[in-house]
Amino acid sequence: MKREREKLAEKYFNCSESERAAFEAGIKLGTIYHQFVGTPINEENAGLLERAMVEGTMIQPFVIDAEVHIERGPLRSKKGEFDYVSLSGSMLAVRLVVGYGNVKVIARMKHISEINYPLMYIEDITRIEER
Amino acid sequence: MKREREKLAEKYFNCSESERAAFEAGIKLGTIYHQFVGTPINEENAGLLERAMVEGTMIQPFVIDAEVHIERGPLRSKKGEFDYVSLSGSMLAVRLVVGYGNVKVIARMKHISEINYPLMYIEDITRIEER
Amino acid sequence: MKREREKLAEKYFNCSESERAAFEAGIKLGTIYHQFVGTPINEENAGLLERAMVEGTMIQPFVIDAEVHIERGPLRSKKGEFDYVSLSGSMLAVRLVVGYGNVKVIARMKHISEINYPLMYIEDITRIEER
Amino acid sequence: MKREREKLAEKYFNCSESERAAFEAGIKLGTIYHQFVGTPINEENAGLLERAMVEGTMIQPFVIDAEVHIERGPLRSKKGEFDYVSLSGSMLAVRLVVGYGNVKVIARMKHISEINYPLMYIEDITRIEER
Repeated sequence: MKREREKLAEKYFNCSESERAAFEAGIKLGTIYHQFVGTPINEENAGLLERAMVEGTMIQPFVIDAEVHIERGPLRSKKGEFDYVSLSGSMLAVRLVVGYGNVKVIARMKHISEINYPLMYIEDITRIEER
Repeated sequence: MKREREKLAEKYFNCSESERAAFEAGIKLGTIYHQFVGTPINEENAGLLERAMVEGTMIQPFVIDAEVHIERGPLRSKKGEFDYVSLSGSMLAVRLVVGYGNVKVIARMKHISEINYPLMYIEDITRIEER
Repeated sequence: MKREREKLAEKYFNCSESERAAFEAGIKLGTIYHQFVGTPINEENAGLLERAMVEGTMIQPFVIDAEVHIERGPLRSKKGEFDYVSLSGSMLAVRLVVGYGNVKVIARMKHISEINYPLMYIEDITRIEER
Repeated sequence: MKREREKLAEKYFNCSESERAAFEAGIKLGTIYHQFVGTPINEENAGLLERAMVEGTMIQPFVIDAEVHIERGPLRSKKGEFDYVSLSGSMLAVRLVVGYGNVKVIARMKHISEINYPLMYIEDITRIEER
């Protein structure tokens, strides 16, 4: 049984289930990037920040699973008053699973060296059993 | 002819053109919201901030058009040292056109009173002529 | 003994220890507000987000202590797909202790109903013993 | 004559005019950094974004003047779908003038190569004539 608010939201959409699922995945990746890039980070708080990013994603609509990894390389030997960095997109790796209707999307964000760009992409999109 | 970097990016995707287009639209709306919510705003700078949000969106991949409107209601009679607000999602209305391959997506962000939520949705998704 | 990088940074400043301490406190409060306002939040992740905000503050220069409280009122009965909110400044209460040289600043951020504003202020500024 | 809301705010402060001025300057620099770092940028929208950052700063309490410069170097030859970057702190140079009571603060944010850090500092703090 669908929730009341989702039923109200649904009537605004004019697309297929799989397009909706892809759209929702895109929203979440854009959100992670632009909400958290810039956050002060070093080796001490990286793990906690990863968890906060996961939890902030999990509470959003249609998210089934989220994993966030912050690359520790740029954080090494950061010790002292100025020894932390601002989280940048190139340090982020995200794996996101979104489910909408009968469709499941696996989406990722990952820094791609070839194009020097934190690419957000759809790794897989499949039909699932009725939930 | 497609650009080199887009060709490199493309191979990471495993979905249809319309799913990709929907995904790209979602990224841009999530980006607008989470990059700019919190920005100090009153009637003096609202127009300029709208333009900056549009331009920051237009330079992203596959964006054909973008319109941003900030509701002026909450900004009225804000005059004096503390008389400005932080941009909130409920003040934002966005219309976004994304084109990928032969697919065009019209997506929107709009505060929906019924659900008290700044909804991001796909208004229309259509086949277009080969570009 | 002062750290090398702080010694290099110090020569850019042309002010007293207490003015520097106040300046550093201001930076941290502005950072907390504008980095995290907009983050998706409900009762499930509020505690974790508070801790991430504290840790992201503690690693910055000259911070001795930080406490962050997110008001839970607006999060009650948020259950379901759309049942979360974006963190707003009015939900935030912060207490920050900054030490620079012989000066200690206690600064706060708190929503003040009288002026309907998330005020950042210096509660106390005192000389401390040489560290 | 001071404004009503500022009079209400003032009673929360327990510090000197110059400490307050320094604190207010710190808030604004932290705000600029953490609000705008991450914004999509290339040569096309850099000028407009600079202006939006200036205007968003000018409307905040006690700001007399603000200048923002985004370094264009990293933006050169960014042409094509993926050819833009996210604004980073190292690209930012800010000059800010804050006035509180009889005190004027000139504060700056600037990337300092020696310490590889976007330093925020007080360049000058002086008594001014009664406004």
